[in-house]
Amino acid sequence: MQKSSFQPLTVETLPARLSTIAAVADKVGPEPERWTVQEVGDGNLNLVFIVDGEKGSVVVKQALPYVRLVGDSWPLPLKRSFFEYHALTRQAERAPGTVPAVYYFDEAQALIVMEYLSPHIILRRALIKGEELPKIAEDLGLFMARTLFRGSDLHMETRARKTDLALFADNTELCDITENLVFTDPYFDAPMNRHTPELDPLVAELRADRDLKVEAQRMKHLFASKAETLVHGDLHTGSVMVTGEDTRVIDPEFAFYGPIAFDVGMLLANYWMAFFSQKGHEAGGSRASMRAYLLKVIEETWTTFRAEFARLWRTERTGMLYHRSLYEDQGDTLAAEQALGHVLHEVWTDMLGFAGVEMHRRILGLAHNADFEEIEDTGLRAGCEAAALRFGRHIAVNRRHIASLAEINHLAQQLDESAAVS
Amino acid sequence: MQKSSFQPLTVETLPARLSTIAAVADKVGPEPERWTVQEVGDGNLNLVFIVDGEKGSVVVKQALPYVRLVGDSWPLPLKRSFFEYHALTRQAERAPGTVPAVYYFDEAQALIVMEYLSPHIILRRALIKGEELPKIAEDLGLFMARTLFRGSDLHMETRARKTDLALFADNTELCDITENLVFTDPYFDAPMNRHTPELDPLVAELRADRDLKVEAQRMKHLFASKAETLVHGDLHTGSVMVTGEDTRVIDPEFAFYGPIAFDVGMLLANYWMAFFSQKGHEAGGSRASMRAYLLKVIEETWTTFRAEFARLWRTERTGMLYHRSLYEDQGDTLAAEQALGHVLHEVWTDMLGFAGVEMHRRILGLAHNADFEEIEDTGLRAGCEAAALRFGRHIAVNRRHIASLAEINHLAQQLDESAAVS
Repeated sequence: MQKSSFQPLTVETLPARLSTIAAVADKVGPEPERWTVQEVGDGNLNLVFIVDGEKGSVVVKQALPYVRLVGDSWPLPLKRSFFEYHALTRQAERAPGTVPAVYYFDEAQALIVMEYLSPHIILRRALIKGEELPKIAEDLGLFMARTLFRGSDLHMETRARKTDLALFADNTELCDITENLVFTDPYFDAPMNRHTPELDPLVAELRADRDLKVEAQRMKHLFASKAETLVHGDLHTGSVMVTGEDTRVIDPEFAFYGPIAFDVGMLLANYWMAFFSQKGHEAGGSRASMRAYLLKVIEETWTTFRAEFARLWRTERTGMLYHRSLYEDQGDTLAAEQALGHVLHEVWTDMLGFAGVEMHRRILGLAHNADFEEIEDTGLRAGCEAAALRFGRHIAVNRRHIASLAEINHLAQQLDESAAVS
Repeated sequence: MQKSSFQPLTVETLPARLSTIAAVADKVGPEPERWTVQEVGDGNLNLVFIVDGEKGSVVVKQALPYVRLVGDSWPLPLKRSFFEYHALTRQAERAPGTVPAVYYFDEAQALIVMEYLSPHIILRRALIKGEELPKIAEDLGLFMARTLFRGSDLHMETRARKTDLALFADNTELCDITENLVFTDPYFDAPMNRHTPELDPLVAELRADRDLKVEAQRMKHLFASKAETLVHGDLHTGSVMVTGEDTRVIDPEFAFYGPIAFDVGMLLANYWMAFFSQKGHEAGGSRASMRAYLLKVIEETWTTFRAEFARLWRTERTGMLYHRSLYEDQGDTLAAEQALGHVLHEVWTDMLGFAGVEMHRRILGLAHNADFEEIEDTGLRAGCEAAALRFGRHIAVNRRHIASLAEINHLAQQLDESAAVS
């Protein structure tokens, strides 16, 4: 394969271009004429191929120099593939077994050849179908605690962290997407926004809501300046592939050094949206059990995250922050516990802010969630979305005064029950 | 001058090496044999020469590949000169007239040729002598507001800010000095620490003070992760040169992307230490007026900083944070004011934390202040230092619950009056 100028792969050209790469031929088989290739990219940004051969299958993901969803009017750097590759390798080290194995990376062609996950499906699709997956809370709670703790100054050698910070600081365009599409555009009449028409009055109310708009920008301020750890950056339920037994996190091209709370807030927001969307998916039967399951997943994800973060704090706090020399080494274990309490409390309050804003942008901004979008009756959909919007506003604005997930999940249930079904 | 390998300048070699540089010869004069050169570096890190000639004078500052104070057992990268140069040029743009003009920079030789400031003296020396300089509060309040606001996402284009963040992220060794010497070493029995012997009981008390040690590390966490703006990084009274009419900030080699509050807290801490040291400098007469002057400078510096930051917020908020599209453009000016209040309140509480910690490290750590060091009577000195230590502990631990500088300056007066003079 030529290392020269970028060329998008096609189903036809892929075998010839990749068969000379030993790492790929080893996995798929030595004879490219016996490979079958499907293009399956349903995302917004990239080409994704599944390549099958005698020996096995791989996934080939290639970035395009623009946003696939929009076309070449919205250019986007190929370098996002570089950031995805580097994020995948770091996540694999920090939380082994949670991301697809990478077999090959070509920076110039912006392509990554990686493990084909089967029979995995996208978590969002499973939740829309009403599947109660038994392992996601524990697996993703651990994934977040491990990657976020181990990528920070709580664990890493600080020069290595600063070098990585500088490396990922160049992921400007993808950060810019989040900065604008998540934190700003939903709160005014930005050109790319759209929302279910029945929401008009509520949208007007939210866009006139001073406290909400101040808080949303404070979250943006945190997002842009709190460079604590390497975050996934786009950890919604569409970035997770699952079976009943296995959970894998994919697509970390938005990775950068940001706040620990960001991934946590985004993931829980997507569970809450799944929860509020259930009313729209009851044609095939009641979703009462699914609702209870989703609230339980939210609580357990947070509990697992918190417990694992605390375990790593006690056993792997080898970085320069809150160093043992000041605490345990002086016989003051409670000082380390006191500091842990402060750090986790800040993750908690920030997480609620990020979650609230994420719920708004998925209903008011450019990129919507299938959970709501697939509810065809727009009145029904608007009812679900309205409850989610109100809930998001509540947790974002009141994030410093919310005591527990039990409390806010109770609020979610109340809002869901009283949601207007016009 | 050869661009090749690094060679330290000497008084003897300097004229021959620098006379071929037009920017230097223009300022000093074309005939190097008529130059006179003095080495005046009294700092801890670098060589500093004053070069005089027929046409005028310049300062030549050259980094050494180790800490001058300690010797070559403590290596330190020459690249700090690169960071100093880049910080100086940015500060000159953002706050014109507040830093020495740069005439020439040689990265390989780690040297900067800059404006010779005369008859300026180091602000710390002026304060020790009891000089009441009329302009420092306004000048430094403006300097901080302008450099810190204009180097942030409140004002800059975000790609430019992220590029700069990555550039300065490599200033690891100098950040590491601050991280260890300011936030950690003073709070345990670290090898390079020293303190006035009479302080032993209080030092033991502080090193067993759980709340203080947790808060000090929370400040370190902020220092290391809150990448808001390009900070000076070492803005104490030894980094400022003054006359009655002019104020210049020098030595920004510790510059990096950090919290807005860091420079503010460090500067005010050094004023408070000057205040608490006055009792040790009364051999030549009462320092009552100087004490009142210093507390007034502290209040006015903060008031000026706050007012100028607010003015820039209202007139130059062109960056991606708290964008006008959400606030003023929707007729909601109060929303922008509300957000400003939040941002300034956070600078306030963080500033108090950084100030408290800075006061501790200057009394308990490696690098002490002449304000206290020049008090020969160690009992008298310890009394001054003890009041400063107690004050620093109070403002660091209680930083979220302190309402005004009037209130804490009143506390400073009380502590100063009751300080033990053994």
